[in-house]
Amino acid sequence: MKRIVTVGGGTGSYTVLSGLKNIPDVSLSALVSMSDNGGSTGILRDELGVLPPGDIRQCLVALSEQTDIVRKLMNYRFEEGGTLVGHSFGNIFLAALEKVTGSFVQGVEIASDILKVKGNVIPITKNNADLALELEDGSMIIGQVNVSDTNTQTKGLKRIFYKDPVILNEHASEAIDKADYILVGPGNHYCSVLPNLIVDGFKEAISKSNAKIILPINLTNKQDQTTNWKASDYVRDIEKYLDKSVDIILVNNESPTPEQIETYKLEEGDGVLVEDDLDDIRVIRRSLISPIIINFDRTDTRQMHRSFIRHDSEKLADCIAKIIYQ
Amino acid sequence: MKRIVTVGGGTGSYTVLSGLKNIPDVSLSALVSMSDNGGSTGILRDELGVLPPGDIRQCLVALSEQTDIVRKLMNYRFEEGGTLVGHSFGNIFLAALEKVTGSFVQGVEIASDILKVKGNVIPITKNNADLALELEDGSMIIGQVNVSDTNTQTKGLKRIFYKDPVILNEHASEAIDKADYILVGPGNHYCSVLPNLIVDGFKEAISKSNAKIILPINLTNKQDQTTNWKASDYVRDIEKYLDKSVDIILVNNESPTPEQIETYKLEEGDGVLVEDDLDDIRVIRRSLISPIIINFDRTDTRQMHRSFIRHDSEKLADCIAKIIYQ
Repeated sequence: MKRIVTVGGGTGSYTVLSGLKNIPDVSLSALVSMSDNGGSTGILRDELGVLPPGDIRQCLVALSEQTDIVRKLMNYRFEEGGTLVGHSFGNIFLAALEKVTGSFVQGVEIASDILKVKGNVIPITKNNADLALELEDGSMIIGQVNVSDTNTQTKGLKRIFYKDPVILNEHASEAIDKADYILVGPGNHYCSVLPNLIVDGFKEAISKSNAKIILPINLTNKQDQTTNWKASDYVRDIEKYLDKSVDIILVNNESPTPEQIETYKLEEGDGVLVEDDLDDIRVIRRSLISPIIINFDRTDTRQMHRSFIRHDSEKLADCIAKIIYQ
Repeated sequence: MKRIVTVGGGTGSYTVLSGLKNIPDVSLSALVSMSDNGGSTGILRDELGVLPPGDIRQCLVALSEQTDIVRKLMNYRFEEGGTLVGHSFGNIFLAALEKVTGSFVQGVEIASDILKVKGNVIPITKNNADLALELEDGSMIIGQVNVSDTNTQTKGLKRIFYKDPVILNEHASEAIDKADYILVGPGNHYCSVLPNLIVDGFKEAISKSNAKIILPINLTNKQDQTTNWKASDYVRDIEKYLDKSVDIILVNNESPTPEQIETYKLEEGDGVLVEDDLDDIRVIRRSLISPIIINFDRTDTRQMHRSFIRHDSEKLADCIAKIIYQ
């Protein structure tokens, strides 16, 4: 049995895990960033003092072997009701579990039992994690929502860090130690991927681990943060934060459909895929793009930042299965 | 295997079911009143248009064979947080399930699976049930909260009814039809017990059933509604609404401790037990009172109406087990 660790958060991890859970004979551990402070998650953090449930919930649902209706329940968002509107039920569930058990990590374990989760979903830290940026002009940006809205390319990024010390969860450390493969991403570079890599102790755990590191390159860039980045830029930046070379680089080699590009342009940016400028023996090129056109509700501001060009869960999982069992 | 149906709602049903679930070889169906419109339940009804979850939640928890922590989660009430304060997590859970499935009854079935419920928890109706009173002076009282606050003894009660038609849930009808024993109460007379008996079709279902009807007499009276009622008053009133004689009457024959009486006086009324004036071959007299002193938080208005003199789950269940397997 091969042990696979994923590192990320949010939609990227959801996509990867939804595919990986169908590979036979693997043990999965999802390490999840804990810096989100927006939407329903942000309100629960502020009002109840709990750790951010949103990304954890998505990973739990991805790995859940419960019925479709229970998985749908976890993602259900209240649309009416003065007191509950905008809240995701699954977020409230995790917040209540943290309150009842007194521990977010124990709450996630109980949620995993109820949701019949295949594998382990592990918060990257147990600390309250306020993501922060220092810009070239010396100004500071605090909180992931603000980080996400910052044009780091015009303003210049000096460093990404946490406002207060954020220590690696020991369960995450153990998972990294025992892993055969560690998948870093895909996902929002500054708001889902790096928030894991900059946790105190992460780099050290990676350095001690014998796992092969797999890096699926993001399909598209995030406007004003990674605009015009090429595949090599991602490899260089990730390796800088890991302080270690990655072993395998997964690059998509199929174009999105014209319809996908149009939708993407309308919503998110130029619709141009990350350019594959790699000439590297570590690269595996495959069609990794999802052919599905996602019809988001454009009046729903919560959905505006979801990507219209996405990895395909099954294609990504097939590719990883071949790597593991080659 | 004996089939037992309980009829009630709220704390009374919780007490009965917590004991009955430990009797071997019984099939339990809890019929639960659906007229509550107070507290967290009332807010969810108003804001989301769902059916009232509170009493159903208590019965699910009573019959749940999940871990203590999950049962505690279901009863967890948010104490902080602007948006969630005062809500019971279990109520939100049932409301979200109704939204996701489109059916309160289906939601309760899924909740029963997740909570590993022994037996069936059955809403007495699927209709929106607004409890109402007509008083002797012709005035109308609408909504269970208002009903609970009405002095029916000085004002005179003409009738208790539903504002709009409320039909018996067919699952409740089936349970009554197949029952060997039907336990009516204990519980708040006008707000937990009668709201089941006045549902359209209930009386007819009871009339067709061969089940023996067991009536545990309430331990105490509710001020301004059943003040000074004796055991015979309860029997007479229940039989009027059932339109059938009860077969067995359970009467407590032990006094509460002086400490219990003091606490009760302080909070609820005169602390005098319902007088046993019955001279009837159907009566079984036992110690049915709980010796536990319940330390409620007196600053919490939600707890003010809970009874400080209660039936004992185990004593009640032992008594019923002897009746069934005599």
